[in-house]
Amino acid sequence: MMSIPSLPSAKAIQVDTRGALILEEESPETRDSRGIYLPNYVEPVSHIAVDIGGSLAKVVYFTRSPDHPRSPSITATRGSPSTVSLSHVSTPTSLSPESHDMPISSSSPSNHARNVNGALTPAVLDQNGTNGHVINRPPSLSDTTFQDSLLRRVSVQHLPGGSLNFERFETEHIDECIEFIETLIERSAQFNHVTIDEMRKSVKIMATGGGAHRFYERFTNELHVPVHREDEMECLIEGLKFLSLIPDEVYYFSDELIDKVSHGKPVLNGVNGVFERPSPDPPKYAVSFESHPTPQLPCLLVNIGSGVSIIKVDEDGSFERVSGTSLGGGTLWGLLTLLTPATNFDEMLALSEKGDNATVDMLVGDIYGQDYGRLGLKSTTIASSFGKVFKKDGKKVNFSAEDISKSLLYAVSNNIGQIAYMNAEKYNLDRIYFGGCFIRGHAATISTLSYAIRFWSKGTKRALFLRHEGFLGAIGAWIKNIGEADAS
Amino acid sequence: MMSIPSLPSAKAIQVDTRGALILEEESPETRDSRGIYLPNYVEPVSHIAVDIGGSLAKVVYFTRSPDHPRSPSITATRGSPSTVSLSHVSTPTSLSPESHDMPISSSSPSNHARNVNGALTPAVLDQNGTNGHVINRPPSLSDTTFQDSLLRRVSVQHLPGGSLNFERFETEHIDECIEFIETLIERSAQFNHVTIDEMRKSVKIMATGGGAHRFYERFTNELHVPVHREDEMECLIEGLKFLSLIPDEVYYFSDELIDKVSHGKPVLNGVNGVFERPSPDPPKYAVSFESHPTPQLPCLLVNIGSGVSIIKVDEDGSFERVSGTSLGGGTLWGLLTLLTPATNFDEMLALSEKGDNATVDMLVGDIYGQDYGRLGLKSTTIASSFGKVFKKDGKKVNFSAEDISKSLLYAVSNNIGQIAYMNAEKYNLDRIYFGGCFIRGHAATISTLSYAIRFWSKGTKRALFLRHEGFLGAIGAWIKNIGEADAS
Repeated sequence: MMSIPSLPSAKAIQVDTRGALILEEESPETRDSRGIYLPNYVEPVSHIAVDIGGSLAKVVYFTRSPDHPRSPSITATRGSPSTVSLSHVSTPTSLSPESHDMPISSSSPSNHARNVNGALTPAVLDQNGTNGHVINRPPSLSDTTFQDSLLRRVSVQHLPGGSLNFERFETEHIDECIEFIETLIERSAQFNHVTIDEMRKSVKIMATGGGAHRFYERFTNELHVPVHREDEMECLIEGLKFLSLIPDEVYYFSDELIDKVSHGKPVLNGVNGVFERPSPDPPKYAVSFESHPTPQLPCLLVNIGSGVSIIKVDEDGSFERVSGTSLGGGTLWGLLTLLTPATNFDEMLALSEKGDNATVDMLVGDIYGQDYGRLGLKSTTIASSFGKVFKKDGKKVNFSAEDISKSLLYAVSNNIGQIAYMNAEKYNLDRIYFGGCFIRGHAATISTLSYAIRFWSKGTKRALFLRHEGFLGAIGAWIKNIGEADAS
Repeated sequence: MMSIPSLPSAKAIQVDTRGALILEEESPETRDSRGIYLPNYVEPVSHIAVDIGGSLAKVVYFTRSPDHPRSPSITATRGSPSTVSLSHVSTPTSLSPESHDMPISSSSPSNHARNVNGALTPAVLDQNGTNGHVINRPPSLSDTTFQDSLLRRVSVQHLPGGSLNFERFETEHIDECIEFIETLIERSAQFNHVTIDEMRKSVKIMATGGGAHRFYERFTNELHVPVHREDEMECLIEGLKFLSLIPDEVYYFSDELIDKVSHGKPVLNGVNGVFERPSPDPPKYAVSFESHPTPQLPCLLVNIGSGVSIIKVDEDGSFERVSGTSLGGGTLWGLLTLLTPATNFDEMLALSEKGDNATVDMLVGDIYGQDYGRLGLKSTTIASSFGKVFKKDGKKVNFSAEDISKSLLYAVSNNIGQIAYMNAEKYNLDRIYFGGCFIRGHAATISTLSYAIRFWSKGTKRALFLRHEGFLGAIGAWIKNIGEADAS
């Protein structure tokens, strides 16, 4: 089905990632929270990791699933069968312009009902009553939250191995996150035939992100389990080191395709024969997955959540937060909340796909009537984001939500790309990893960040992305506990 | 009245700036367009310079005014008498929190009516009919535009010397700019007792900025005078070299005051004893003027118009546009047009002064509940601009126009400051000049840019500002013609 690459041993990471597989995607909403199957890892202790940021709380936990997952199909992992291979590096997956998500698995829907199990280790799991139904669901949970979540989990019954599972909540509704973890512990007690008090003794919470401090008392008091707080940056780096060794986890906007857009056969625009910016049309957004990962240090990690942290990581894993910007996902979300009818981040991204930023942005051509050739500025280069929006003779002009969304997505992405590039240049780093919940596998975001790095570095540096982009911190917190357990 | 500093000879600049004086300010709206009196300069040719950007067209022209201006009072040039000197470097002028403009001159209003003269060189001027009335005003001009403009001009009657005059138009209304120049030429013909055709033979237009290309045909066809196009970046640098030698032109947020805010006596906020950000309260916004200027190269020039250009200038005056960002004045203006009832840039700036960004921005304290001490991030640091704006349970929350304006002003200014700093660091430049019509002498903008440079450079680099910040390009275009005339 899939060759298991022989990975170099990664001493800094205690989790055995040999043979790791990314499990099938169940729905577009979970494209960044697909389980990761680790056939060679057996968890010594039960713990749940949570990374609480300004906008989102991310949860990671391990469930034993000793059988090789039934259908971690090559289709799910490597792209839909209709995708034509456009480069020789790995197998690119086309991100459809209609859907900004990774291709949806072609596996049968019946799989969903089968994979119902939210139980933690340590004991062998009891499958009774799990065939499509959740038993003993606490009445305090909403009708759909927990069941939906469990329906997305993947785990089966025998040792060894298991899966990492991923869940996301809004920090504003931290109650739901706490209830989810509570239910996870309760269910684990049931499956393991122990009392809830006994279960609590063998479970702990690894908490990171700003909310680990802000909500420390609540987690401790409401869950009745030990809560360990871990440094946010340390967790991000641990998460990155782990994820970058998972086959088909890392992807990038293919160099060849950027070349084609920026240097190759011209896509004419108007009469000046200048090149277009990357557009949502395939194949210009195709990405390549890294199926044979190698250690990725040194690198720069740009974590884009509500705000942006930029972290330099040395070859030995030591790191420093060297920069950041307050113009991040929260800025895009906040401004588009005020300016568009979209009610969530994905709706805003969907709007942006239909937009044309040239109605809103002032381009070089709008100012010069042509290229500013002496500076190498093309007429299509954005000179001023939102520069065309002003009241004409005191009257408000209406701009479409689509155009506004696209302009702002470009503005925020370009700006992050530029600041990231400058830091990569300063510290002489060629690999720039972008993580955080801002990206969401969104084609325009990925290509804009890639294009910005390509543009500013003149092709010498590469933007790299991760399927589990939003879970670096939570995975890192989960891993840090493994290290502690080994050390003790 | 005022000592004339002995300036080092500036070989690259042909205009004799010895004894230059900045003339009184006539109204808050013209605080950045006050005339500059040059007692030792006699113009060899008549020309008008225009710099047409994405949003604004800036006009510079010289008028003979052989008498020393009647009241270039020390008050107007150096700040209001009520200002207390807070540092030993030059004499600081306090920017009032209620008005974002430079102090208004205390001279008598009757001066306005006296200084009515829009005539160009070369002949000695006739004062007939200029006593408060504009003669032969073309009917095509609006009732107020030209008269208002002339009321703001300063010029008197004998050789030698004269004044540089400054005017600003919206690029959207380029007609008004062309009409203004046309009238200037017509009036000059009248004063010099020559026909309009003869006058046109001795006048030329020096045009720069993107609009020099976009509107070239219109200027040529409608004004019937030669139009010379000059490179935008070259003009900016020429303008900077000229202006930075004018006494009391350059100003900066005093180091001592930044020290007081960032390292000195703490201004406690909450229980953690952290320092406040600079706030609009004096003396934290006081600036110092450079009364004894010295050559300022090498330096970095950050020109903030609709978009932002960042130019490295070497000691010998050679230069390169090394960076830029599309997040500039047009972005602030455009977004606030969509988000607030303000109808012009100054109204938006006024709104921002009454706002509190903490209702809109997600601060480090909002995420952590405290400082993130390990990274040196204070609880008041902005983690995510607009990060607090999102629909609560699908409902829109209303935010005040004031708070939104302040948040966006901070976001754009901080971002420009950060990118400017990174370029200054890369090229090892300690002086960072900020020019362009974005700044408008606005206290919050100046202090935010200054604070950003101070913060990122750990106090090693200085943000510098110019009274005629928006006219660098136009002044440079005016000067370039002087050089050409000398060379020919």
